Amino acid sequence: MYATASSTRLKAARRLTKRALRQRERAFLAEGPQAVSEALGSGTRMSGLFVTAPARVRHAELVARAADAGVDVQVVSGEVMSELAQTVTPQGLLAVCDFVDVPLSDVTDGRPRLVALMANVRDPGNAGTVLRAADAAGAGAVVFADASVDPYNGKCVRASAGSLFHLPVVVGARLAETAGALRDAGLRVVAADGRSGSTLDDPGTAARLAEPTAWLFGNEAWGLPPELLDLADESVAVPIYGRAESLNLATAAAVCLYASASAQRRARKN
Amino acid sequence: MYATASSTRLKAARRLTKRALRQRERAFLAEGPQAVSEALGSGTRMSGLFVTAPARVRHAELVARAADAGVDVQVVSGEVMSELAQTVTPQGLLAVCDFVDVPLSDVTDGRPRLVALMANVRDPGNAGTVLRAADAAGAGAVVFADASVDPYNGKCVRASAGSLFHLPVVVGARLAETAGALRDAGLRVVAADGRSGSTLDDPGTAARLAEPTAWLFGNEAWGLPPELLDLADESVAVPIYGRAESLNLATAAAVCLYASASAQRRARKN
Repeated sequence: MYATASSTRLKAARRLTKRALRQRERAFLAEGPQAVSEALGSGTRMSGLFVTAPARVRHAELVARAADAGVDVQVVSGEVMSELAQTVTPQGLLAVCDFVDVPLSDVTDGRPRLVALMANVRDPGNAGTVLRAADAAGAGAVVFADASVDPYNGKCVRASAGSLFHLPVVVGARLAETAGALRDAGLRVVAADGRSGSTLDDPGTAARLAEPTAWLFGNEAWGLPPELLDLADESVAVPIYGRAESLNLATAAAVCLYASASAQRRARKN
Repeated sequence: MYATASSTRLKAARRLTKRALRQRERAFLAEGPQAVSEALGSGTRMSGLFVTAPARVRHAELVARAADAGVDVQVVSGEVMSELAQTVTPQGLLAVCDFVDVPLSDVTDGRPRLVALMANVRDPGNAGTVLRAADAAGAGAVVFADASVDPYNGKCVRASAGSLFHLPVVVGARLAETAGALRDAGLRVVAADGRSGSTLDDPGTAARLAEPTAWLFGNEAWGLPPELLDLADESVAVPIYGRAESLNLATAAAVCLYASASAQRRARKN
């Protein structure tokens, strides 16, 4: 039914495991049935789909959906799949998708009420988890700024659990310009900073978070240095009530984003 | 200054990379300066400390603190350290510690107001991150129930970022008995369940969460099956405002635990 993958196709796909080559082609690899399904559902251009023989049976409906949409479906061995997916437990389906990121102006034009802004977040698992949490909390966009990891990195795509295809993502932005543009679009830029004197639970914080907010999250090891904190309107800490020194980046981000989502909904009801 | 590690010591330590052998010895390996420092600070019995030559210089103060406390310090190569630490980037310090878990009755006797209860959480990184978030949110204990991962697994210890040494941890508990004992101690058992009709942001939820609460978190893939949900007094979902299907377990747990911590503090102030 489907042809065995040609070596030309495979060579082209293999190149997309490298960031520089992804950027040249403006294409990336999305692995697993969830990512493939979300990519198809979001109208992302898919130039090819690789499947293993077992996955072709297991996910027959999804594979047929792709073929019906005109996607070139090719069969590969489990070994080739592991290599392309860069994971030890690939799920047997991998799509070659066009980049989905949008210019920052698309985001600001939409006047979002909640944005997640990552600066120098380096771990792809963390970044993907923040993207997923931002999507869950109803954020209008996620921005990868300064030296943040590439959202098209396989681990980030996987950790985002489909969210990469759900909401506008901005890539390669400069934090200074982004903070300015978001502020001009009516958002308050709030830095998540464990050292801040003000916390999520302080009286008054919820009222401020009910306003349109862009949460700024820094590097997982060193956070936000003073020159980046200066770009925010204020900084707020997730309060530490026990003896932990800090939270990990993705869990702190989820708590902050949900604090805003809740505050905004409560304010709208009142 | 410190002797090179003896082969007997190394052999004994190597055994602790396996769960069954850890359980027999009731000892585990804690890697990295943070874990070693927290273990020393918490009064955990440490039967040995392995250091690489560079780490002995870099963490001279910490190594001296261990030696002063009577811990046998032995020098190992980077290669041996990698093998013991089971990570590609060990930080050069690894302690052999006695188990720190306590019986459930110690927890219930303390009448905690917030407990994290994991049932069949299988990924050590997730479990360690939940432990860290529970500590940060001021929880009084964390319980690893049913087929949950071993908290003494190296990845879990690392993800807990020292929190394993901060608050009472119960291991190997049966969920049915644990839920009953926590209820008898005055806690409401609340299951985190994405399919629940009630959410964290519903009016009324915050008031209930202001009461002493044990949050029950299920497996990362299949959540809580009906027979485990039945053990809870109620179930509550983290609301999904966007298009994500769900949150990952550790981020959902952090949002739930902080919702309780905030509600309890607000109620106390009023």
